Amino acid sequence: MSMNPLGLVKRNIVRADKAAVEKLSRFGVATVHEAMGRTGLMKPYMRPVYPGARLCGTAVTILLQPGDNWMMHVAAEQLQPGDVAVAACTSDSFDGFFGDLLATSFQARGARGLIIDAGVRDVDELQKMGFAVFSRAIHAKGTIKATLGSVNIPVVCAGALVNPGDVVIADTDGVVVVPAAMASQVADAAGKRESLEGEKREKFTAGVLGLDLYHMREPLEKAGLRYID
Amino acid sequence: MSMNPLGLVKRNIVRADKAAVEKLSRFGVATVHEAMGRTGLMKPYMRPVYPGARLCGTAVTILLQPGDNWMMHVAAEQLQPGDVAVAACTSDSFDGFFGDLLATSFQARGARGLIIDAGVRDVDELQKMGFAVFSRAIHAKGTIKATLGSVNIPVVCAGALVNPGDVVIADTDGVVVVPAAMASQVADAAGKRESLEGEKREKFTAGVLGLDLYHMREPLEKAGLRYID
Amino acid sequence: MSMNPLGLVKRNIVRADKAAVEKLSRFGVATVHEAMGRTGLMKPYMRPVYPGARLCGTAVTILLQPGDNWMMHVAAEQLQPGDVAVAACTSDSFDGFFGDLLATSFQARGARGLIIDAGVRDVDELQKMGFAVFSRAIHAKGTIKATLGSVNIPVVCAGALVNPGDVVIADTDGVVVVPAAMASQVADAAGKRESLEGEKREKFTAGVLGLDLYHMREPLEKAGLRYID
Amino acid sequence: MSMNPLGLVKRNIVRADKAAVEKLSRFGVATVHEAMGRTGLMKPYMRPVYPGARLCGTAVTILLQPGDNWMMHVAAEQLQPGDVAVAACTSDSFDGFFGDLLATSFQARGARGLIIDAGVRDVDELQKMGFAVFSRAIHAKGTIKATLGSVNIPVVCAGALVNPGDVVIADTDGVVVVPAAMASQVADAAGKRESLEGEKREKFTAGVLGLDLYHMREPLEKAGLRYID
Amino acid sequence: MSMNPLGLVKRNIVRADKAAVEKLSRFGVATVHEAMGRTGLMKPYMRPVYPGARLCGTAVTILLQPGDNWMMHVAAEQLQPGDVAVAACTSDSFDGFFGDLLATSFQARGARGLIIDAGVRDVDELQKMGFAVFSRAIHAKGTIKATLGSVNIPVVCAGALVNPGDVVIADTDGVVVVPAAMASQVADAAGKRESLEGEKREKFTAGVLGLDLYHMREPLEKAGLRYID
Amino acid sequence: MSMNPLGLVKRNIVRADKAAVEKLSRFGVATVHEAMGRTGLMKPYMRPVYPGARLCGTAVTILLQPGDNWMMHVAAEQLQPGDVAVAACTSDSFDGFFGDLLATSFQARGARGLIIDAGVRDVDELQKMGFAVFSRAIHAKGTIKATLGSVNIPVVCAGALVNPGDVVIADTDGVVVVPAAMASQVADAAGKRESLEGEKREKFTAGVLGLDLYHMREPLEKAGLRYID
Repeated sequence: MSMNPLGLVKRNIVRADKAAVEKLSRFGVATVHEAMGRTGLMKPYMRPVYPGARLCGTAVTILLQPGDNWMMHVAAEQLQPGDVAVAACTSDSFDGFFGDLLATSFQARGARGLIIDAGVRDVDELQKMGFAVFSRAIHAKGTIKATLGSVNIPVVCAGALVNPGDVVIADTDGVVVVPAAMASQVADAAGKRESLEGEKREKFTAGVLGLDLYHMREPLEKAGLRYID
Repeated sequence: MSMNPLGLVKRNIVRADKAAVEKLSRFGVATVHEAMGRTGLMKPYMRPVYPGARLCGTAVTILLQPGDNWMMHVAAEQLQPGDVAVAACTSDSFDGFFGDLLATSFQARGARGLIIDAGVRDVDELQKMGFAVFSRAIHAKGTIKATLGSVNIPVVCAGALVNPGDVVIADTDGVVVVPAAMASQVADAAGKRESLEGEKREKFTAGVLGLDLYHMREPLEKAGLRYID
Repeated sequence: MSMNPLGLVKRNIVRADKAAVEKLSRFGVATVHEAMGRTGLMKPYMRPVYPGARLCGTAVTILLQPGDNWMMHVAAEQLQPGDVAVAACTSDSFDGFFGDLLATSFQARGARGLIIDAGVRDVDELQKMGFAVFSRAIHAKGTIKATLGSVNIPVVCAGALVNPGDVVIADTDGVVVVPAAMASQVADAAGKRESLEGEKREKFTAGVLGLDLYHMREPLEKAGLRYID
Repeated sequence: MSMNPLGLVKRNIVRADKAAVEKLSRFGVATVHEAMGRTGLMKPYMRPVYPGARLCGTAVTILLQPGDNWMMHVAAEQLQPGDVAVAACTSDSFDGFFGDLLATSFQARGARGLIIDAGVRDVDELQKMGFAVFSRAIHAKGTIKATLGSVNIPVVCAGALVNPGDVVIADTDGVVVVPAAMASQVADAAGKRESLEGEKREKFTAGVLGLDLYHMREPLEKAGLRYID
Repeated sequence: MSMNPLGLVKRNIVRADKAAVEKLSRFGVATVHEAMGRTGLMKPYMRPVYPGARLCGTAVTILLQPGDNWMMHVAAEQLQPGDVAVAACTSDSFDGFFGDLLATSFQARGARGLIIDAGVRDVDELQKMGFAVFSRAIHAKGTIKATLGSVNIPVVCAGALVNPGDVVIADTDGVVVVPAAMASQVADAAGKRESLEGEKREKFTAGVLGLDLYHMREPLEKAGLRYID
Repeated sequence: MSMNPLGLVKRNIVRADKAAVEKLSRFGVATVHEAMGRTGLMKPYMRPVYPGARLCGTAVTILLQPGDNWMMHVAAEQLQPGDVAVAACTSDSFDGFFGDLLATSFQARGARGLIIDAGVRDVDELQKMGFAVFSRAIHAKGTIKATLGSVNIPVVCAGALVNPGDVVIADTDGVVVVPAAMASQVADAAGKRESLEGEKREKFTAGVLGLDLYHMREPLEKAGLRYID
């Protein structure tokens, strides 16, 4: 079955433009998500495994089998400097698919971090290494190496579709995915949004209300808002 | 329908006595909860969005619609120095209803923080601003401004009934609500409890057992406790 | 009913060998779990209540009733220096069974920490005291003292069977239980595993791939892995 | 503390008008919720414990302590024909607070069912008795009788505020609460809504689209909807 | 932004071959999933809203906004006989996006059912109508019509990628998605699998063990399985 | 490591006395749980996969690896008439470890059902076969056969310790485990409890209140219960 997504490793993937990735790396997840028309977010259960973790890079995607991290090793070889490993699983699994040894290998390849819709372990070491990881769970449970998944196929990770080469940005607010072809455009939109936000922040600091700044009083009244004492 | 709770903003609310709020601010959530006869707590899924966040103030309540933060802006105008915004939602929603811009506005009004039974974003900025937020979720998902909720009506937030003007105290142990009319009485009870705890702490430090301090040996034996070797 | 597990306190328990406990304390949870053939872990919902908490000691087990911490006081008397209290509950309960007063008492007895499949409170004080606690929840809700549970009987805590005297190790990766009789053997196996990991870490740092280090290329090919461009 | 909500039984409560309750009993939960301006629903985790359960009656409210069903017996005496027991708990508890014996007692008092934000047991017997129960959990775990809660005070049950005497309606779609003073008004509004729905149903059956029936094409276009081929 | 997935309705979609859909409709979800190499399943939280619901048809996809069912009406017009509506949401939402009126409209268009990663209501009526619905939640909460989503774009529904025109099969075991281009091939593979299963069933009925039927004794021994008495 | 619980199959287990099992089969789960001093229950997430399923038999225990049902086939050979398979997993896994083929094999061996802290599939067929199954999840996801677990070792299943040969009883109220050595004693206690309940039921039917039947009025008053009008 040619469309069977298991047992495949795609070697040549089209990564998002480096300059666009660099530009995107300056923005937070919320800003990028807004710049994309409020799309691209993973589920909010994806959390940094240590405080302050953040990353921005191009996705090398991994489809894992539950309790099996064999494909992590296959993926390592496909990682290039600036990449982020993005791992999904064929069914819900909270085991520790990834720890400090794999992190050492990924870091040696130049990878910037891991996004995994499953569990990881060796969290203290990951923090010491400065290897950014966002996961669904922290769990010491070891995994096996028995069943094929895939590398660099489209995956659904924590509710978001990720294609190899897409830009992945993660910080305290969560994880967002930018399709490779849109990276530059989204970076521009994010920049515009951020400068607009700067202006608004000054006004809010000065005591201006959103009711006035956004001209909400009239539409609120039309919607039927009643003030009582 | 005069009792329809949607589309209302109450401007004049009776806030708890300032001195009582000030007094309550010295106690932790657990102490206040005990002083109220073990009532008043929100569900334990309400957590500080950054380590060390804590607050105590008078509630301005907000009833939100799912995925819609319009009422946040309406509420901003009702905030006075010393207030805490307390936001409930008409159905479970984990989107990011609140970020650094609204926080700037709320802070400019003198508000001390936000309690929200939903999600927030821009967590790093909130931490830098020292604006205390306790929420159910962290999520970058943006919200719309389309449907009326209410401000300063009684709301059920994370399982607790909150009336406008009530005192809300939040720290690492959770969130507790003190009805405005009880604030002074609860503050007194909390003070008594804390001084009693100080005495107990010294005894425990010295090695006295709770079994003896609380005279539990006899009731335990009566209940049938058996010691075996 | 002689096998009724409620209402019992066993005073003399066989604790794991001190030297083995000391040796085990040098290893992380993931390493110990692997050294036991990938067994012994509690569920991943057991988390440290403050960053950096870790412990290793011999279990004094406690079976609690929901919302009732009476047995905590009974257990205090059974604690010896180097012990860790391990508390299970007869049904799911998220209340705050344990706070700074009990922690003071436990610490005065020489206990190193608490593992509890329920909630705790006074988290800031626990952190200041350096008393390590791993729990399912943080909740200020007070508990009563009305119904008997037991102390030092076998308990199921967060999915793991714990016998009194077993070694319990907890860190950022979770909680693992080593049967007392296996402590020395597991410590040796953990030591061997750790030195092997050191060698591997060097190779990974130098850029060797797991694919080569673990000779995975042939089995992957046999399993049908296909590389495409 | 006069406002301490624990340890109280209110005997004389104002029940909603019988005719209004009777009229409300003809409508489904969704219809009543809409007739109230989309308010009044409990959380969707409240489910019938057997297929086809449904009820409508006036609330006798119960505040339980976790794992303790003492107040159920206190409440039995307050039940009158046409009442529905509505039980909340001071913290999350999934034990079996209610079984066939209490159901026999409640039914003998003329009660129509139970709404409980906790667990129940003896589900097969409840079904045979035709005693309608909506709960958060089914669990055989027994409870104790040790700590006071209250009867006929305002409670928060599954996220909804319930005052004694309010009308509670439950069916396959969930549970809705109608404040006693609004019962008649809501029943009228529900009736109007239902007749409107009958007309719409005919049109939909005939193939008319909501796009046309609700005149949505223009607002959709204004909002920017684009059709592509 | 041309790739912005919001605000789009694609009218002409390529539906899977009718004969293949018909053939697939004879198989259960588990069989089809196996025939696809163990892929294509939605998360197990997707459940039939009434016992015995099952469906097989071609997907018309819908991307909803939280608490907003506007796109349901837009989608109705795109439904053709044999279609199944597949609705995803831009963030987690458990409201009742769909009830008997929309079901009447969808059924009038010839649709066979609805798969929705959110909530529905009017469940009793849906059952009476024989309109098959699989959802994440049952909730009476009404929704608004304010924000654009899309129709017939690729969506991630309950963890599975669904393209318009794909075949969706749902029964008591869950929901599986077959890419349109693979429908015929998967139907053939499912047929083969089912006939093989028939043979196996006979052997198991006759008392043959899987250990022998699948020749597992040797590999188990090699893996180190030890029998003790 | 002699205590490593993986890779073992114990052939000769001591099953609970047949007469006691037969006697226990007449009681419901709640009654047996009470007769054991309120112990022995599994977590309430264990539910029958079809309405009306119930079973009582002697446990053949299975320790599975996540996503791997190899040990199911090993266990089949150990099943004898009257047994119930009780399957735990080394970490949380919701895949479909068991379907109609294994059920056919288990039923051919005389097994009465399956208790599994994971997922199953082919639920409609299981119902048709009358093979009772209680599980944590229903999921069509297939499993592999690659890693050893064990058969007939003590396991923790859904929070309860189960030894091979123990009696397992399951019905609509959940699952309870009776240690083999206590089976007869518990059956007697259950019988006594049930006859007592019969008497109580009559009194409740006649309108006697629990307040009077259990002499609660005085202890309630002592505890401070206040009646108000």
